Amino acid sequence: MSGKRILVINPNSNADVTASMSEALEPFRLPGGPAVDCLTNRHGPLGVESQRDVESVTLQLAGLVGSEVADAFVIACYSDPGLHVCREVTTEPVFGIAECGLLQALARGDRFGVIAMMDRSIPRHLRYMRQLGVTGRLAGEAALGLRVHELADEERSWTRLVEVGRELTEDAGADIVVLGCAGMARYRKRLQAVLERPVIDPTQAAVGMALCAVLSEAPASI
Amino acid sequence: MSGKRILVINPNSNADVTASMSEALEPFRLPGGPAVDCLTNRHGPLGVESQRDVESVTLQLAGLVGSEVADAFVIACYSDPGLHVCREVTTEPVFGIAECGLLQALARGDRFGVIAMMDRSIPRHLRYMRQLGVTGRLAGEAALGLRVHELADEERSWTRLVEVGRELTEDAGADIVVLGCAGMARYRKRLQAVLERPVIDPTQAAVGMALCAVLSEAPASI
Amino acid sequence: MSGKRILVINPNSNADVTASMSEALEPFRLPGGPAVDCLTNRHGPLGVESQRDVESVTLQLAGLVGSEVADAFVIACYSDPGLHVCREVTTEPVFGIAECGLLQALARGDRFGVIAMMDRSIPRHLRYMRQLGVTGRLAGEAALGLRVHELADEERSWTRLVEVGRELTEDAGADIVVLGCAGMARYRKRLQAVLERPVIDPTQAAVGMALCAVLSEAPASI
Amino acid sequence: MSGKRILVINPNSNADVTASMSEALEPFRLPGGPAVDCLTNRHGPLGVESQRDVESVTLQLAGLVGSEVADAFVIACYSDPGLHVCREVTTEPVFGIAECGLLQALARGDRFGVIAMMDRSIPRHLRYMRQLGVTGRLAGEAALGLRVHELADEERSWTRLVEVGRELTEDAGADIVVLGCAGMARYRKRLQAVLERPVIDPTQAAVGMALCAVLSEAPASI
Amino acid sequence: MSGKRILVINPNSNADVTASMSEALEPFRLPGGPAVDCLTNRHGPLGVESQRDVESVTLQLAGLVGSEVADAFVIACYSDPGLHVCREVTTEPVFGIAECGLLQALARGDRFGVIAMMDRSIPRHLRYMRQLGVTGRLAGEAALGLRVHELADEERSWTRLVEVGRELTEDAGADIVVLGCAGMARYRKRLQAVLERPVIDPTQAAVGMALCAVLSEAPASI
Amino acid sequence: MSGKRILVINPNSNADVTASMSEALEPFRLPGGPAVDCLTNRHGPLGVESQRDVESVTLQLAGLVGSEVADAFVIACYSDPGLHVCREVTTEPVFGIAECGLLQALARGDRFGVIAMMDRSIPRHLRYMRQLGVTGRLAGEAALGLRVHELADEERSWTRLVEVGRELTEDAGADIVVLGCAGMARYRKRLQAVLERPVIDPTQAAVGMALCAVLSEAPASI
Repeated sequence: MSGKRILVINPNSNADVTASMSEALEPFRLPGGPAVDCLTNRHGPLGVESQRDVESVTLQLAGLVGSEVADAFVIACYSDPGLHVCREVTTEPVFGIAECGLLQALARGDRFGVIAMMDRSIPRHLRYMRQLGVTGRLAGEAALGLRVHELADEERSWTRLVEVGRELTEDAGADIVVLGCAGMARYRKRLQAVLERPVIDPTQAAVGMALCAVLSEAPASI
Repeated sequence: MSGKRILVINPNSNADVTASMSEALEPFRLPGGPAVDCLTNRHGPLGVESQRDVESVTLQLAGLVGSEVADAFVIACYSDPGLHVCREVTTEPVFGIAECGLLQALARGDRFGVIAMMDRSIPRHLRYMRQLGVTGRLAGEAALGLRVHELADEERSWTRLVEVGRELTEDAGADIVVLGCAGMARYRKRLQAVLERPVIDPTQAAVGMALCAVLSEAPASI
Repeated sequence: MSGKRILVINPNSNADVTASMSEALEPFRLPGGPAVDCLTNRHGPLGVESQRDVESVTLQLAGLVGSEVADAFVIACYSDPGLHVCREVTTEPVFGIAECGLLQALARGDRFGVIAMMDRSIPRHLRYMRQLGVTGRLAGEAALGLRVHELADEERSWTRLVEVGRELTEDAGADIVVLGCAGMARYRKRLQAVLERPVIDPTQAAVGMALCAVLSEAPASI
Repeated sequence: MSGKRILVINPNSNADVTASMSEALEPFRLPGGPAVDCLTNRHGPLGVESQRDVESVTLQLAGLVGSEVADAFVIACYSDPGLHVCREVTTEPVFGIAECGLLQALARGDRFGVIAMMDRSIPRHLRYMRQLGVTGRLAGEAALGLRVHELADEERSWTRLVEVGRELTEDAGADIVVLGCAGMARYRKRLQAVLERPVIDPTQAAVGMALCAVLSEAPASI
Repeated sequence: MSGKRILVINPNSNADVTASMSEALEPFRLPGGPAVDCLTNRHGPLGVESQRDVESVTLQLAGLVGSEVADAFVIACYSDPGLHVCREVTTEPVFGIAECGLLQALARGDRFGVIAMMDRSIPRHLRYMRQLGVTGRLAGEAALGLRVHELADEERSWTRLVEVGRELTEDAGADIVVLGCAGMARYRKRLQAVLERPVIDPTQAAVGMALCAVLSEAPASI
Repeated sequence: MSGKRILVINPNSNADVTASMSEALEPFRLPGGPAVDCLTNRHGPLGVESQRDVESVTLQLAGLVGSEVADAFVIACYSDPGLHVCREVTTEPVFGIAECGLLQALARGDRFGVIAMMDRSIPRHLRYMRQLGVTGRLAGEAALGLRVHELADEERSWTRLVEVGRELTEDAGADIVVLGCAGMARYRKRLQAVLERPVIDPTQAAVGMALCAVLSEAPASI
């Protein structure tokens, strides 16, 4: 499969986020498998937190998808900004991490909970889950009450992740939890251990779907 | 990742089916990635076509999952027989190909169509899709009118696959098609080319989900 | 209607459960009406509490349905084990008590609550209710936290039934309650009196549906 | 059970309809079981075909339910007129035949079809099915194009019943059919034989549910 | 548009309610626009609180709609009594305030909460919302625990409106609130200010829809 | 209400479309009512037909909404581009014409049909209707097969409008039709006459909703 490539685009301009994302994707880089490259959208905002942030990156992402060469693309922001316009500019598959995170949760548990960053993201996520047609299996969504950049504060983030994770699993009945921000990735394993239920990093879920799509199109014999 | 293993279990006892399945999974076997082994359920029926066939393999599959060592399991029959009992006997993730085929379709198109083997499978599939909570995006399901073993008849199978594929996409409005039987795998690429829309092989979809789950749990460092 | 017969099969091997079930069905045995016979599945587990228990009885039940002569069959376990395979082996109607209990609840109240035995049954029930397409009227489900055999402890059972019944009606808004285990039958009337709302014994509901089906096929004149 | 009584009220004033309904219910009159009495709403219209007809009988029915003594009531018109107001004037259960016909269909098949009298009834039925929360299992509804009184024309009625029954089962995928008018009862068995699928008479379904409710409240021992 | 007229019918016989309703509609009476007349159903009950009250006014309302001359009608009671029969007696559009209040809420927020008068109205409203097909966006409904005439007690009403409004927005996640009774209109602006979210008076919503319908049919040029 | 203003923004740069829209809104300009001003988004594409077109105008529209002074805004394109970002930049209500057209249809009929311009718009509309939560009442959507600018060809447009309108009402069972493009407005009345069912112009529907919102906030007395 030399030359096959999955391109993961971080819609925000924070190269640290891209680096940390890339690190979490390290296990997906297999000898003989497609390259998994991560790209920062240099013209994006520092974080995608509002609807304006979402709209500001859609055409930038379409531009990147249209100009980069890859066998599958991943839009690595939990708002799946520009997903449909990116699909319009390429014949290769384009995956959104929210979409893939939720779908992988459906394959691993019965009812899922979502951990959002801020309360104000929840209506945006709810209408997106209705659009996807998956609300019949939503146990609940709750927010950390943190801005994206505050995820760097480990202690505060961890405390809230555990509190909200427990609220979703113990009170709302979720048997699986989806991290509602690419930036929460590095807390995944620890949270999974504490909650004793699968916790899904949506970026990994999307790269997994992309990997599947790329491998499916490969020639059947080596 | 030496030693990691995905075990794909063919619930029926037809070793030819297992061999052909294994061939379609060849691209998923990557150096450095988990092994993708295929196992025939020797005690199963020659094909899983009726509810009785489904029920006859559930405990056999649980037995195999319980006794085999793997990091993820795939039940490779579009009825997802015994999926929930298999999940009860292991702490590793177990994937059903129907479930994964449908979920991957949701990540690739807006409304999916399903190609069944026989008309009588359709109510079984419909109630399963309701159970999964995905009927809001179902365009339709239609049957080839063939028994599983008749898939060996290339000309007849191909003719019906194209007819039913066109019915689903042109009449029912599907923009993506899921193959409703593991045995249809080898027609996937050709059908995709003719229909000019993605066609999903559910076994590949499930192995992709399994690969993602296994890689996600791998150590994060280079 | 001499010779007409409804056969109620207790999927577990506990003959005491069958006897108590039979007693609760006494009012359904009417002169001139079909016999209502109760049969113990001698090869079943002592109680059906896990998915393995469910799977272990499906073919046993199909065997009984296929070999017994009756005008309607009732599978008397709230997991409706083997319902669809039993329907495959007979042309007579086969009823599951969970299905019928829920449907009768829909005819008597607006939103129903379900009392489960154990927390771990709830996801199994939820996916079944989605399969039935009735979750739009579910107020909630909650568990006693008791094993089936513990229902023999009257005081503890009664205390929990009242607590959970009140939680479902007063907090979750259920105006009707379904008993989520055949073994709760003997508490039905008392609980109904305390909750001041209809409480449905699913076995009675299923035998009622079976009685209706048998009588509907009877010759129209005496 | 001496003295127990199910009262079936025909909302329209056509005593012939009541008589024919009573005849179809003959098998439900069992020695030792509750009486099944049929009552004509003398002040009703000759047939309930419009929303005005529906509204014109609601308080008449509530009056009858409030003044008659019975252990369960059945409103025997497929529009379920006045069902909720009747439930307000008695503590005994009140059943609507549309509701019960649809619920019994859910216990017998996977997706149901409904045969209406006139096209203009269909939107009324559809909104009622949405209210009941059962549209997830509706295969389709189609109309005979006959007025209620035209059901007396056997040849024309039979021809249309078969045509519409086949349209629902063969084209729309229904595996069970509900008769959308109490007056179609006498064609039930014949239509069932021709369609080779269960056909539900909603009045029988409702009397069956009523019988179940009455028997459930009976003393447990003879 | 001289001569155009919107007729708002108060189904209850309380002329004070009609007067207060008319006052809240004052801004909708525009020079050159249709008249907005309010009419008391003199033969109705003092308040519509039970299903009996609902049924008692349906034909009275149809009578008024059939005899009055208007270009659009509004049934101004949150139970939308007689809406469908009124639509049968006129070719002009007829609007129900519950329907319109809920639909306008959908255009202003993501998930709506409803403030009911009494707990016993909630099941009636829930089944109506299911009929409308809008429950997918319902955050919750809760009751003041007041009879309609008690809305005259300003202090008690206001206290409860704020409590229930906060419960719906802060606990249940509603970002918009619908007043579930025409009589709550005069508290709308104050409640909106306190909750800091839109609060919908359903009578205004329905008159707005009626105004739109009337203006749409007007000649396109002045 | 001097000084009150509803601003209708045409997202595309075609001033002819804006003019024709403005003409259709003439009846909504009432003495004493708010001004209804129409504005062309000069920087927009000539028509909004693709997802790229949608994305290209979102921030332009937010810019206009943020800089213009109005009491309510209407985004006058059936894709509701930028609706949520526009809501973020103002405290005044912002209405999308697709949303409002569909909601008004729900208040006028039971099941709605939508006439799209091109087939490729249908998946976009379907996912939007799922997001709105209104698909439970969708009868169907079908396309004219015309580009927006081809609406100027009266004969061809009219022929297709009637064909598609009849397909939706006679075959798919719609009892109300929504025009899926602001540019179809001038055919509304004629089509309504031919189909003998209400036909909704979504721009009028949205301006009606905006008018209602503005009037609701007006002082209650003159």
